[in-house]
Amino acid sequence: MATKSFVDVDADSHFPLQNLPYGVFRIPNCAAEPRPGVAIGGLVLDLSVVASHGLFDGPILSNSDCFQQTSLNKFVGMGRPAWKEARATIQKLLSCDEPTLRDNSSLREKALLPMDSVEMVLPIVIGDYTDFYSSFYHAKNCGLMFRPDNPIPPNWFQLPIAYHGRASSVVISGSDIIRPKGQSHPVGKSPPHFGPTQKLDFELEMAAVVGPGNEPGKPMDVNEAENHIFGLVLMNDWSARDIQFWECMPLGPFLGKNFGTTISPWIVTLEALEEFACDAPNQDPRPLPYLTEKKSKNYDISLEVAIKPAGEEQSSVVTRSNLKHLYWTFSQQLAHHTINGCNLRPGDLLGTGTISGPVPESLGCLLELTLNGQKPISLNNNSTRKFLEDGDEVVFTGFGKGNGYKIGFGTCSGKVVPALP
Amino acid sequence: MATKSFVDVDADSHFPLQNLPYGVFRIPNCAAEPRPGVAIGGLVLDLSVVASHGLFDGPILSNSDCFQQTSLNKFVGMGRPAWKEARATIQKLLSCDEPTLRDNSSLREKALLPMDSVEMVLPIVIGDYTDFYSSFYHAKNCGLMFRPDNPIPPNWFQLPIAYHGRASSVVISGSDIIRPKGQSHPVGKSPPHFGPTQKLDFELEMAAVVGPGNEPGKPMDVNEAENHIFGLVLMNDWSARDIQFWECMPLGPFLGKNFGTTISPWIVTLEALEEFACDAPNQDPRPLPYLTEKKSKNYDISLEVAIKPAGEEQSSVVTRSNLKHLYWTFSQQLAHHTINGCNLRPGDLLGTGTISGPVPESLGCLLELTLNGQKPISLNNNSTRKFLEDGDEVVFTGFGKGNGYKIGFGTCSGKVVPALP
Repeated sequence: MATKSFVDVDADSHFPLQNLPYGVFRIPNCAAEPRPGVAIGGLVLDLSVVASHGLFDGPILSNSDCFQQTSLNKFVGMGRPAWKEARATIQKLLSCDEPTLRDNSSLREKALLPMDSVEMVLPIVIGDYTDFYSSFYHAKNCGLMFRPDNPIPPNWFQLPIAYHGRASSVVISGSDIIRPKGQSHPVGKSPPHFGPTQKLDFELEMAAVVGPGNEPGKPMDVNEAENHIFGLVLMNDWSARDIQFWECMPLGPFLGKNFGTTISPWIVTLEALEEFACDAPNQDPRPLPYLTEKKSKNYDISLEVAIKPAGEEQSSVVTRSNLKHLYWTFSQQLAHHTINGCNLRPGDLLGTGTISGPVPESLGCLLELTLNGQKPISLNNNSTRKFLEDGDEVVFTGFGKGNGYKIGFGTCSGKVVPALP
Repeated sequence: MATKSFVDVDADSHFPLQNLPYGVFRIPNCAAEPRPGVAIGGLVLDLSVVASHGLFDGPILSNSDCFQQTSLNKFVGMGRPAWKEARATIQKLLSCDEPTLRDNSSLREKALLPMDSVEMVLPIVIGDYTDFYSSFYHAKNCGLMFRPDNPIPPNWFQLPIAYHGRASSVVISGSDIIRPKGQSHPVGKSPPHFGPTQKLDFELEMAAVVGPGNEPGKPMDVNEAENHIFGLVLMNDWSARDIQFWECMPLGPFLGKNFGTTISPWIVTLEALEEFACDAPNQDPRPLPYLTEKKSKNYDISLEVAIKPAGEEQSSVVTRSNLKHLYWTFSQQLAHHTINGCNLRPGDLLGTGTISGPVPESLGCLLELTLNGQKPISLNNNSTRKFLEDGDEVVFTGFGKGNGYKIGFGTCSGKVVPALP
């Protein structure tokens, strides 16, 4: 297989020929519908053009309209054989040895668009969004703050704890986040405080995009669950801590979360990430049989969070973590989610929960970094943060480091704008 | 306005001319797509036929394809003016004085189908499903069982507590419910128990179907929230108590709920229910301004749950409750849900939570009726129940009692089938 594309790709680019992540884009000020694309260097390959020129010539895709859709749901629902065939076709088409696009300037100009000329939209229609709680360090740190005598409840080590989030408020990177209003804990006998949240936080997460899904009543086998994951995105599960802590007893987070969740536009496939596979942490106690994997696998993906205050040129990196710190694996999450017969559908989104690492510089949210606002952190411009301020832009990046290239997720960013009057 | 239809309607029917609930149906063994219909007596009025014959002749609906859809989402998203226009047209068409359908036998046979010849399907595509916890009696009874020193947390009186449920597993009345498997609380130092739930329960709820919804960042005013509710359905939020209690710390219920939630096929509009409006309970402490209504309104809807064991002819009524017992109103639920900017979309489903009343015979789930299995209840066939057994069919009914007629919801039923091997 060729490892170079005829498209110029910077050594620092997240999108070399080895990556080929999928997204959905539209052309600004153009009536045409959004359509699927693949990133290569600074360009986007328009898959609807590739398809309409009959270039998907494999047995599964040659007669499919999956790339003439406004979302990737149909394609991700087709499963791994279709994903492999698409990847092989696209990798060949973009390789330096292949003349089809390289030597046909009119087709090339139609099919390959500058990334900065397109607008990315949500790549999938999300039927259900689930958020897990799979980082041991995050669970421990939060527990120590709020339940010091019982920081990690015993169920945490037996099952990947999760709750349902809100699908309607998942937005694409670049969308503004309006500071939410709500109730927070009353002081003494007064009524609850009401107003814009004073504890707006990010949560560093990644999320799996579900592929084929399962029928109601038919759990996924943990050793086959990987075939139900199309790929991963970066995710910021914005949180209003004061709202969350007041509302969450006894049914869990609700308005403290569902005002906005940002995902990165490019879905990086598990195939592209396979070279970063690494052993998952040892699990003690040993999980029940339905959660026991033949091989328990994480991915070595470096993650970084930066805050860029309003009007500043420079952003400040506030944490560096890694996907490999997850205690519960994606396969275990899917097996657990479906063990009761719950049906997942193509395009469902499964968040990891905040990915905190073992050291203070690797904590995945301000709640942990500042000890719930008690210990502000410093930014490059000499300001400090307990929680996010209006105008702050929060930028996540993530990538795996290959031999001479990066396989990355681009960025997942959002700016905090003031609460509406 | 005429109060009688040319269609014969039994005095006991849930579907007189005063009701006109909306559903979506298909003809079994027929390739045609599902289409919207309205119930009248024992018949279903096919709205796609009414529309294709140009009989929706009002200004909003005459050029709309909202009744040529496979779900009601487009229609419910159009808002109250469209709903009023549709109701006026349908009520006129079906009235005893109106010849259009009454005297045209070929059109009448095309447009009016026996209810038992059609199969009802989910009337809406549910983007998000939220479940509230709005019955004081339910909250108190559950709290007394599990947190006797603090049965109702103080937030309960300040806000309508809710959590996100699962949209993918909402099913239509008549669907079997497969007994879910899962983990439950370990005894001593052993691993958690694993197997089919031993505490399968129903939860007697109703749910609101959201109409037009709101833009992200723009809360609904509590005094206008009613215009965002298209209508109500009966809902059984099946629950596996052993799974739920082991998993729910600290993020709330998940697999204990998301294996199945059953709704009744007919959405009864708020307009049809208006004559059953009644005062909501007095709220003390007084809610914050964003939850304070000019007029706080419940509906007097009698609710009943019956269990029909496998092989029995007779079912046993196990509870009788009423929607009027809700502490938090639907309008308050919508205002709270959106106060942080969360966007609701047409077709979203908002469950009330279990509707328990003040007396022992009005408790809305077996958990309460049997004190978590400690005090079995007796059925007509002399068997007893701590929780549901395989083969049990659970049937909810609900109606308001008008002057000489009932405005009802039909039934919401489901049968428990054994866990898969």
